[in-house]
Amino acid sequence: MQTSIPRIIIIGGGFGGIQAAKSLSRSKVQVYLIDRNNHHLFQPLLYQVASSALSPGEIAVPIRSVLSKYRNVSIIMDEVTSIDTNRRTVLMTNGSLEYDWLIVAPGSRHSYFGNEQWEQYAPGLKSLSDALKIRENILYSFELAEKFYHTSDAHKYLTFIIVGGGPTGVEMAGAIAEIARKTMLRDFPLIKKSDVRVILVESGTRLLSSFSEELSEYTKNALNSLGVEVLTGIRINHVAQDYVMAGNQKIDAKNIIWAAGNSASPILKSLNIPLDRSGRAIVNQDLSIGGCDNVFVIGDAAKHTNPNGSETPGIAPAAIQQAKYVAKVIAKSLPTSERPPFRYFDKGSMATIGKAKAVAMVGSFKSKGLFAWLMWSFIHVFFLIDFRNRFRVMLEWIWYYLTNRPGARLIIYSKKTVHDIKHDKQ
Amino acid sequence: MQTSIPRIIIIGGGFGGIQAAKSLSRSKVQVYLIDRNNHHLFQPLLYQVASSALSPGEIAVPIRSVLSKYRNVSIIMDEVTSIDTNRRTVLMTNGSLEYDWLIVAPGSRHSYFGNEQWEQYAPGLKSLSDALKIRENILYSFELAEKFYHTSDAHKYLTFIIVGGGPTGVEMAGAIAEIARKTMLRDFPLIKKSDVRVILVESGTRLLSSFSEELSEYTKNALNSLGVEVLTGIRINHVAQDYVMAGNQKIDAKNIIWAAGNSASPILKSLNIPLDRSGRAIVNQDLSIGGCDNVFVIGDAAKHTNPNGSETPGIAPAAIQQAKYVAKVIAKSLPTSERPPFRYFDKGSMATIGKAKAVAMVGSFKSKGLFAWLMWSFIHVFFLIDFRNRFRVMLEWIWYYLTNRPGARLIIYSKKTVHDIKHDKQ
Repeated sequence: MQTSIPRIIIIGGGFGGIQAAKSLSRSKVQVYLIDRNNHHLFQPLLYQVASSALSPGEIAVPIRSVLSKYRNVSIIMDEVTSIDTNRRTVLMTNGSLEYDWLIVAPGSRHSYFGNEQWEQYAPGLKSLSDALKIRENILYSFELAEKFYHTSDAHKYLTFIIVGGGPTGVEMAGAIAEIARKTMLRDFPLIKKSDVRVILVESGTRLLSSFSEELSEYTKNALNSLGVEVLTGIRINHVAQDYVMAGNQKIDAKNIIWAAGNSASPILKSLNIPLDRSGRAIVNQDLSIGGCDNVFVIGDAAKHTNPNGSETPGIAPAAIQQAKYVAKVIAKSLPTSERPPFRYFDKGSMATIGKAKAVAMVGSFKSKGLFAWLMWSFIHVFFLIDFRNRFRVMLEWIWYYLTNRPGARLIIYSKKTVHDIKHDKQ
Repeated sequence: MQTSIPRIIIIGGGFGGIQAAKSLSRSKVQVYLIDRNNHHLFQPLLYQVASSALSPGEIAVPIRSVLSKYRNVSIIMDEVTSIDTNRRTVLMTNGSLEYDWLIVAPGSRHSYFGNEQWEQYAPGLKSLSDALKIRENILYSFELAEKFYHTSDAHKYLTFIIVGGGPTGVEMAGAIAEIARKTMLRDFPLIKKSDVRVILVESGTRLLSSFSEELSEYTKNALNSLGVEVLTGIRINHVAQDYVMAGNQKIDAKNIIWAAGNSASPILKSLNIPLDRSGRAIVNQDLSIGGCDNVFVIGDAAKHTNPNGSETPGIAPAAIQQAKYVAKVIAKSLPTSERPPFRYFDKGSMATIGKAKAVAMVGSFKSKGLFAWLMWSFIHVFFLIDFRNRFRVMLEWIWYYLTNRPGARLIIYSKKTVHDIKHDKQ
């Protein structure tokens, strides 16, 4: 199968994988990008699909469309089952493919720290199908709460627990508070605002631990003013069908959302190299892996330490920088000795907390409130993959902020995806 | 449970059910609308979701939103299991409810004429989840055809068979031809236009039998020019996982879409009245059913004969007219003797055949081509349930006709919904 021009396989069509393909499109190489899905997902806005603010089509775009103008890039929709670095081969469900260079960018799933059975009750938020599952759970819970309003079960359906106080958990909690304590109430005459509880549980001492203490405090207050109860320093010890144990406290809830931990893609195991406890590949300074100078791991599947000792975070801008770096190494066929170490350039980080509120940190510069939120909106719309989606999302947001009515409140797959669709009693 | 003001139950949130609720909103009655879904669906555009031209959110809207301003209307999201006319009770999966008046508007499903096992290979097109299933099948077939292009199986994935030459079948065939023989090809470098076959099979002698012969002929030619092979006078005798028997001819195909027959909702059986062979309730001239002057069946679940002997068609305008009629009878509590017979007023019918082509018939007035298509577009956008969706669909269409790139080409649920996801060989 070896051809005269080098063959590069990219595993994963996330931010890193797409950027790698783009950066290699001008080189004399043949690129294969493999993803189990047909779409690239703008994951930072996934929580807005879960909260019905946006539709799937507004944050996702077919990978083929994104890359259709690059003639040396082929897309394969398939699931990678393992990597054989000795035979330089990637094995998929339907066939296998040999490579000269390999870029592994498979991302991560949520981790339940060994309690994987919790997933059925507390879905995480990584894929469109996760987001739709959470959305349908929320919408269907309101239907059941309205129907069984005068029974003792109603409060369970109206209690929303978000586990994990990182950016995803904070954004999710803010978005759920807005839809559940505001938007939805107009359509459900029996349910009152005071019936709805949104609880954010964080085991550490403060929310957004990667931000400054001041911004953490601001975030907590902003969430409180949206009606979110914030519990810090409390660990979730058990998750069941209709309750959680938060420390020693039992909280009844039918809507539990997991935003507490990540675990890198299991295909990394087949590389036979040391992984950290989140399952990430511990990579060299040039992002290659031990013993294979033609195999790179990038994005949140890689644990990379910068020359200054800091760790590269698992966020989109880092994956994109890594992809560009690796593409350059490959395009020039640099031997290991000539590769400069990869250096992450921190462009800052941000999280939004509902309408017109956000926190942002760029180096020592900190911002909060409306200005941070405008910055957040601008950057997120700007980086949406194609023009069309930018345009749609902007329209959606303008519509939403004028009318307070998100549009995407459809239960389509309920019979298959919502757990426990039948009410317990009867 | 009997209250002093009359209690009206409406089963079904389609065109008939929604209109009935609206028409009764000004009367001193309590209305309950029961639907198993949380959304009203603009079914005439469902084929555009199946062909990726529109997103689910653009043709569906939560029933609660549509009716939220009517304070005497309550929405119940539940599945009706049976109707007990003696006890004047509707039984649902989660509980039951008594009525003084009942409006049954449950719609219909597709019918396989006793071959229900065909459904797994040839899905019909009635719900959003049907449409998404068909869409994901189409998109995934292209992925497999590209991957296995050099095997003898590729042509199966690129053959699309639509069974039934009524309006749904014609619209579906036109839409699939446009996406499969035009739009998709840009993203799949191996697949050529000539590899793609779209076949419309009709057992009768001509397409659109409810239209004039001239319009049938025009439709056939218009489909041919889009690359659709039209087979008339040929019956589908067998449907299997990857082929159909069309008459004596075996046609290999992985994409089979059923648009051949309807069968009314099975809950009508519990009414214990005569049904026609499509399972529809044979209703009286006032749309009530034999022996129950407080129970009405409307929409495509009813077989109604007009005073002039013509049959009321199972289309949205008819359901809306029936709903208004029944609401008036109920609001005035008219006894049977004082009810005028329901009379269907024919506002015409139309079908579209791809970009800028349609046929329309209003009484003896016939139209075809661009003018009919503009009429069709205007009427469909105009009748879309809420302003917001009108606006979005218009934008979508403008975008689509300018760029030829539909947006909603996402495979989200493939692992669960697409039949036979794994390639046969290997």
